[in-house]
Amino acid sequence: MKITDVRVIVTCPGRNYVAVKILTDEPGLYGVGDATLNGRELAVAAALQEHLAPLLIGRDPDQIEDIWQMLFRGTYWRGGPVLMTALAGIDIALWDIKGKRAGLPVYSLLGGKTRDGAWAYTHCGGHTNEELEDSVRAAMAKGFQHIRVQCPVPGATSTYGMGGAAEAASASWLGKGSGDGGPMPHVEGNWEPASYLRVVPKMFAYLRDKLGDELNLLHDVHERLNPVQAARLAKELEPYHLFFLEDALRPEHKESFRLVRNASTTPLAMGELFHTKYECLPLFTEQLIDFIRCDIGHIGGITEAKKIAILAEPYQIQTAWHGPGDISPATHCANVHVDVSIPNFGVQEMVYFPEIVHEVFPGAPECRDGKLWPSEAPGLGCDINEEAAKKYPYQRNYLPVCRRADGSVHDW
Amino acid sequence: MKITDVRVIVTCPGRNYVAVKILTDEPGLYGVGDATLNGRELAVAAALQEHLAPLLIGRDPDQIEDIWQMLFRGTYWRGGPVLMTALAGIDIALWDIKGKRAGLPVYSLLGGKTRDGAWAYTHCGGHTNEELEDSVRAAMAKGFQHIRVQCPVPGATSTYGMGGAAEAASASWLGKGSGDGGPMPHVEGNWEPASYLRVVPKMFAYLRDKLGDELNLLHDVHERLNPVQAARLAKELEPYHLFFLEDALRPEHKESFRLVRNASTTPLAMGELFHTKYECLPLFTEQLIDFIRCDIGHIGGITEAKKIAILAEPYQIQTAWHGPGDISPATHCANVHVDVSIPNFGVQEMVYFPEIVHEVFPGAPECRDGKLWPSEAPGLGCDINEEAAKKYPYQRNYLPVCRRADGSVHDW
Amino acid sequence: MKITDVRVIVTCPGRNYVAVKILTDEPGLYGVGDATLNGRELAVAAALQEHLAPLLIGRDPDQIEDIWQMLFRGTYWRGGPVLMTALAGIDIALWDIKGKRAGLPVYSLLGGKTRDGAWAYTHCGGHTNEELEDSVRAAMAKGFQHIRVQCPVPGATSTYGMGGAAEAASASWLGKGSGDGGPMPHVEGNWEPASYLRVVPKMFAYLRDKLGDELNLLHDVHERLNPVQAARLAKELEPYHLFFLEDALRPEHKESFRLVRNASTTPLAMGELFHTKYECLPLFTEQLIDFIRCDIGHIGGITEAKKIAILAEPYQIQTAWHGPGDISPATHCANVHVDVSIPNFGVQEMVYFPEIVHEVFPGAPECRDGKLWPSEAPGLGCDINEEAAKKYPYQRNYLPVCRRADGSVHDW
Amino acid sequence: MKITDVRVIVTCPGRNYVAVKILTDEPGLYGVGDATLNGRELAVAAALQEHLAPLLIGRDPDQIEDIWQMLFRGTYWRGGPVLMTALAGIDIALWDIKGKRAGLPVYSLLGGKTRDGAWAYTHCGGHTNEELEDSVRAAMAKGFQHIRVQCPVPGATSTYGMGGAAEAASASWLGKGSGDGGPMPHVEGNWEPASYLRVVPKMFAYLRDKLGDELNLLHDVHERLNPVQAARLAKELEPYHLFFLEDALRPEHKESFRLVRNASTTPLAMGELFHTKYECLPLFTEQLIDFIRCDIGHIGGITEAKKIAILAEPYQIQTAWHGPGDISPATHCANVHVDVSIPNFGVQEMVYFPEIVHEVFPGAPECRDGKLWPSEAPGLGCDINEEAAKKYPYQRNYLPVCRRADGSVHDW
Repeated sequence: MKITDVRVIVTCPGRNYVAVKILTDEPGLYGVGDATLNGRELAVAAALQEHLAPLLIGRDPDQIEDIWQMLFRGTYWRGGPVLMTALAGIDIALWDIKGKRAGLPVYSLLGGKTRDGAWAYTHCGGHTNEELEDSVRAAMAKGFQHIRVQCPVPGATSTYGMGGAAEAASASWLGKGSGDGGPMPHVEGNWEPASYLRVVPKMFAYLRDKLGDELNLLHDVHERLNPVQAARLAKELEPYHLFFLEDALRPEHKESFRLVRNASTTPLAMGELFHTKYECLPLFTEQLIDFIRCDIGHIGGITEAKKIAILAEPYQIQTAWHGPGDISPATHCANVHVDVSIPNFGVQEMVYFPEIVHEVFPGAPECRDGKLWPSEAPGLGCDINEEAAKKYPYQRNYLPVCRRADGSVHDW
Repeated sequence: MKITDVRVIVTCPGRNYVAVKILTDEPGLYGVGDATLNGRELAVAAALQEHLAPLLIGRDPDQIEDIWQMLFRGTYWRGGPVLMTALAGIDIALWDIKGKRAGLPVYSLLGGKTRDGAWAYTHCGGHTNEELEDSVRAAMAKGFQHIRVQCPVPGATSTYGMGGAAEAASASWLGKGSGDGGPMPHVEGNWEPASYLRVVPKMFAYLRDKLGDELNLLHDVHERLNPVQAARLAKELEPYHLFFLEDALRPEHKESFRLVRNASTTPLAMGELFHTKYECLPLFTEQLIDFIRCDIGHIGGITEAKKIAILAEPYQIQTAWHGPGDISPATHCANVHVDVSIPNFGVQEMVYFPEIVHEVFPGAPECRDGKLWPSEAPGLGCDINEEAAKKYPYQRNYLPVCRRADGSVHDW
Repeated sequence: MKITDVRVIVTCPGRNYVAVKILTDEPGLYGVGDATLNGRELAVAAALQEHLAPLLIGRDPDQIEDIWQMLFRGTYWRGGPVLMTALAGIDIALWDIKGKRAGLPVYSLLGGKTRDGAWAYTHCGGHTNEELEDSVRAAMAKGFQHIRVQCPVPGATSTYGMGGAAEAASASWLGKGSGDGGPMPHVEGNWEPASYLRVVPKMFAYLRDKLGDELNLLHDVHERLNPVQAARLAKELEPYHLFFLEDALRPEHKESFRLVRNASTTPLAMGELFHTKYECLPLFTEQLIDFIRCDIGHIGGITEAKKIAILAEPYQIQTAWHGPGDISPATHCANVHVDVSIPNFGVQEMVYFPEIVHEVFPGAPECRDGKLWPSEAPGLGCDINEEAAKKYPYQRNYLPVCRRADGSVHDW
Repeated sequence: MKITDVRVIVTCPGRNYVAVKILTDEPGLYGVGDATLNGRELAVAAALQEHLAPLLIGRDPDQIEDIWQMLFRGTYWRGGPVLMTALAGIDIALWDIKGKRAGLPVYSLLGGKTRDGAWAYTHCGGHTNEELEDSVRAAMAKGFQHIRVQCPVPGATSTYGMGGAAEAASASWLGKGSGDGGPMPHVEGNWEPASYLRVVPKMFAYLRDKLGDELNLLHDVHERLNPVQAARLAKELEPYHLFFLEDALRPEHKESFRLVRNASTTPLAMGELFHTKYECLPLFTEQLIDFIRCDIGHIGGITEAKKIAILAEPYQIQTAWHGPGDISPATHCANVHVDVSIPNFGVQEMVYFPEIVHEVFPGAPECRDGKLWPSEAPGLGCDINEEAAKKYPYQRNYLPVCRRADGSVHDW
């Protein structure tokens, strides 16, 4: 069997996605992958179109590991978000092909089901604690048992996450730009750690008071604290028994988790900005975190995700793969196939995509009873409608930028 | 799909083997695994027959990881050679089923081929250096590029390995026992480390002088040295550039490899007496060895082997799975399917089985051009002829015992 | 002062280069940077053109550190070769502007000269030791006191570096591809570590015998060894007193340098595949290497290079920035401005560019008396001739791929 | 360009200052630095006048790094407060020259602005909590958002810092001596750690109760506690969320910060008694502190300060340079140029100088809206009026001495 074509499709059904469709010489046998990197879409598309796709033509799509190694180690310049997203797009499509060829859902190739479905967490936010509570109650009514909660930071001009599920799913920042030359990044100004650190424990005190102790609550720091700030927050959140505290530190600072770890027993999750298994190792071998939440679409796909899960297993670290709205349903499908086949799955971030996304990408994990359920069809269970994709051409867009009250750059 | 029967077959076509045959409700779909543990065959068979097999009836054979976890973590008493061999027998048979069901060789399920074939090493020995040289030249003539060499230890009544390939493949110790009550262990007496340490460097000096520098030479210490002795040997062997020095220390002493490592740059291999991935970790994370050579048939099968390979990969440690004559062709098949599908394969120990073994176990990796080549048929490519197996009933047998010159027990 | 335009120019005067030209509202004041990433040119160009350049328009080009932080931390997805090369292109151009604005060469802004010029090393190779010796003698005759030597690996179909300076400078792999669809990677087949490890010490023994002890000799492993192999090589090269052994291990394996370090006193250099200062830290704080050789064009430019030099300084680690033919003269200029202004400069890799490259990029460090001398003009001293660039349109090209004798992927 | 003269000017406009004025052969081009070391003024002046200044005549003032290395590594006996203050005086003056020559403020040479201004902290004290509260409210009314608070220690005859801003800015101890032979040190008697440890948490409880949670409060231990005392204080202050706890331990005891760190999440600042980057390293690499607050005037100037900031950056440690009244406005200017140009600035200690000081040293950072704003003029923005300086001749003076209740020496 040979790869005959690699199509790179950039489309914007509400927000931009980069799809990879790999065709074979077996009639009707193709795979669909996702190579979306929010705000860097055309860099990934160029890497794929010009530099990687030609290498695949004529190769056997069965040789996923060989292709992966060739495109990682074999190409000298490697790693980083652009190339690992491109590689993920290829890898996910190749696993889709392998599953279809075997007549089996991908989870079966990965060792079969270890659980019925994958616990999902959804996002809740609000401008006030009362709005947030309403949002959480609505999510509970839908069956969610795991809910991520965010609140506005006093003084900041806006705050990441306070829009909850709607923000996560929609192209929330699209069109917020200004200037004739096209959209520019939304600036989240006056964001101060001191204000943030004061408000978050109050949010949890409010929610636990109103909602009781049983709901699994999560919170995302979004890499905005320094070590001692993260340690303080983790310590002050101890009484509220979080399911986990997400991404407390920037991805470059693995050793800093020692400080956070020593300060509290709040479970810690990290990893959406990692791009290889090597970045996970120091957190695993010292057991500095409890959940690894790499993005399957940005770490080279299912092949690397499965390895990361296995590297985490002997350290009793569970997975919580990144699952935002800015990766396509193909990656969400990959997430859930891995989730239900590994022994150390923890929880899966999910979003409800707008209908327009499903028009372009038919097929996605089903969300029911607070869990995600994989497709039982051969392969991954996500397709691309190329005609529909053409209707929604790419629009330049940016992730927001965060600046402190003195105008200095902060981490968004 | 459901498991309908688990057959445990003990047979002795020259030496004892324990086979596991798992049948399903899909007509003709079954898998064959190997649960042979040399000298403990009936303990494994009893564990399987009485304690594990009944748990499998009615389960979905697709759920390999779930079954593995249930039989390891789920059964409370776990680990050790008897139970991990039993689990390997089941795991290997289940992967055979999964491959057949997908219509794909198992290596395809594991990610596809990363190399054409798996470099193999064979065993050479002799009573003198000249005999050994002849044996090596004969192996080279067969195409081997990797050869393990052993020599007699002066003063010892016999020495492990000096029989070379014939010893490895045949039921070499069978019938060497004494006493009316049946065969008893052969005693390897007067084995002294000092004699061993003097003779091995001379053997390598002789061989490099006669054979040149290009051949990849290996040597097996068989866990008989203490740390400082192993360090001395590794250091004195440096000029001969071994491919690796095998099993220098007993399996309980992982930390002692630091001493060996600091003393030399001779590549080190270890692991045939390990039974879980957890035992490998300290050797991996400190990079104390270069090759991990667990026995897929004694560490719970392909599922655990694949995990161990993945745990080794980020530390640049390669695999060299145990591949002796006392595990059946089913495990040898499993070895090669893993070998050709992982990126960090190093070398594969192999034996030529006597024809009688192939009568019972049709199908095995092909050995050609110094490499092993996996079966391209769906599944693993090894079957069992139950009728033939019946012709060769189990015979009690022992591995030898090693004693020092003062009669004290040493490690065999 | 404001940035008014950012031009991204892809050109192929013999090999592909990506130039960044940043224009300001001050008449005639602009800067030239280099954003070439060999074999990934269009991915970088797309990142710049579509995603980064628009963010710069209207900003003050004086604020280099703020722009750097905004494009690294501020953009969420960061790091890796594509984005750090794009960032380098911007950073280098901004330092060029700052120097021109101040009326000072960039080295002056960086603290002024600490030495007259920067010791340079050139490349020598050959198909035989005799050819190599001739090549070295020719380089010595040109005044070089530091020379990198490479030799063919027996059995391999070709070997990196054996072409010496000509290979380094020219578009050596361009046009070696095959197939109608355009050039494909050249495959360096049958490369085996064992052959390599045998031949390199012989090369050095030959050269020291013929050339004496005074010449500073270097050798590049090009990340092709595993830890124990690298340790062996470093140990066996001790008698030949290398200036340094370059890039012994893959960039992901920093902790493995412990093994190499313990085994020998051969000075070690590493870093051309690093993309941030964070990757350098473990090698610095444990003093596992002696020379850091990041590529200023791939780690975000002069700003990050200066920081890396400062992070290295208290550990007595010197710089040896990457300086190959596949980065443009603008980066070579940046290299030398940093070299002559820091206290812990070690040596600078250099190439002679073909005249066609200088037609497109007028200006480069002068090479004289075995040293590189920076331009004394304001800024960096490298310009771009946009008309000439247009004459040489981009051609798709690949770095070679390296495969072992069993067909498996190896590191190129 | 050449250095033609180095003038060392000792003056006492209220308190003693040592200024360094470096002149060049370019008409009108000179730089002003500060080499004041409180209570050791003439030792520094003698070092400059007799031992260092002559080395500079005829050198190129552009070569700051070279001169720095020559005066540090090159002079054999190095380090310590006297020599590093002398070196700072030279270094600051040379950066002033470089900025003026380039026509740019020094922050531009250092990479340009990363923030609009530098958050400043002022000092508040009082004899009672009520007095302290009044003092804090007055500072808040001036716009300060960061305020250092000190209070009297019961039983002590006086206490460092309780005079607040007035004490910090004025020549507070001048003339407090006794004896005919001239002023002698003021003795701060009966200072007991137990009293201190009891009173500080009460002060913070009072202030947080009266002032709320938003104000950024700091406190200076002034190196007077041992490790377990510091750990207790840091832990007991956790509920009051200090911006940082300053100088908890003596400068010799870096490893003791581990104890303080493990005990609490109170942010820690340290470093005004350090004299080189090497002393900072253990606190950085183990992330034992959160703010480094070296004195730019006592660690060799801007060159070393910039390096220390860069060494701190990858560990997420921010700067809080020492900014007391006993260093001249030239160092305060240097502080703010560094502050606004680095990415990891935290906060800047400031004082209001009496008018008499500005008569001698015209030019200083502006304090507005709780921030310090650098001069936009070329260079540092601080001059010296040599005629005015002459009006205020040096007066011998001492820092106070601290003794315990049993008369034993304690750290002041």
